Amino acid sequence: MDEEFRVRPIGVIRTNLKSIDEAPHQGGLSAIEGELVVDERYRDALLGIESFKKLVILYWMHLADRDTLQVHPRRDLSRPVRGVFSTRSPDRPNPIAMDEVEVLGIEGTVIHFRGLDALDGTPLLDIKCVV
Amino acid sequence: MDEEFRVRPIGVIRTNLKSIDEAPHQGGLSAIEGELVVDERYRDALLGIESFKKLVILYWMHLADRDTLQVHPRRDLSRPVRGVFSTRSPDRPNPIAMDEVEVLGIEGTVIHFRGLDALDGTPLLDIKCVV
Repeated sequence: MDEEFRVRPIGVIRTNLKSIDEAPHQGGLSAIEGELVVDERYRDALLGIESFKKLVILYWMHLADRDTLQVHPRRDLSRPVRGVFSTRSPDRPNPIAMDEVEVLGIEGTVIHFRGLDALDGTPLLDIKCVV
Repeated sequence: MDEEFRVRPIGVIRTNLKSIDEAPHQGGLSAIEGELVVDERYRDALLGIESFKKLVILYWMHLADRDTLQVHPRRDLSRPVRGVFSTRSPDRPNPIAMDEVEVLGIEGTVIHFRGLDALDGTPLLDIKCVV
């Protein structure tokens, strides 16, 4: 149980969201556009990605508090406190977020998208096709 | 880009799947039952989880090959090779899987579920509510 694993960003997410206060509280409600800038070393892993209109993205919420175990959902103090595993709070032991994005276009190793509320500079961990 | 992050398992997944050869190739097709055994130190993070019939689970595919960048989808050699980011292959730079499971019951920090095709002993990384 004390084992650890290392995740290595495969790239970075570029958006206009520069601070956590600007971020919407639910990715699904967001219409934010941006770029997934995949590192050149992973170019081969993108083969065939242009055939997908939607992709699932995993990313590391680098500003999250990993020691928080309970929160008020959506930072609404009028709502009863809940364990982070029964919320979508960014604060959680392993702050990995997942969201589905719409692909607007691809240029080389840069994927233009809509629908993610990640802060600019967020480390990108994974891209998966939608099944 | 050479930054790394450490993920710490929050528990372990118990199933009857003992080897990779028994695993179905798509989680969504699976009706496998098992238990999410959450570590006692994260008990507080489970508060309120009993109100959800479905949960999203993130887990670490500990037997995956992280250096693989291209595969035949679903290990079907008749299908053209694709980059791992346009597949759901477990082999990928950060072998983090996500699946939605149906909650069958909860006892303390153990969640009985149906619908995940993870191997027995798979490290559990996160639990999120379904929105």
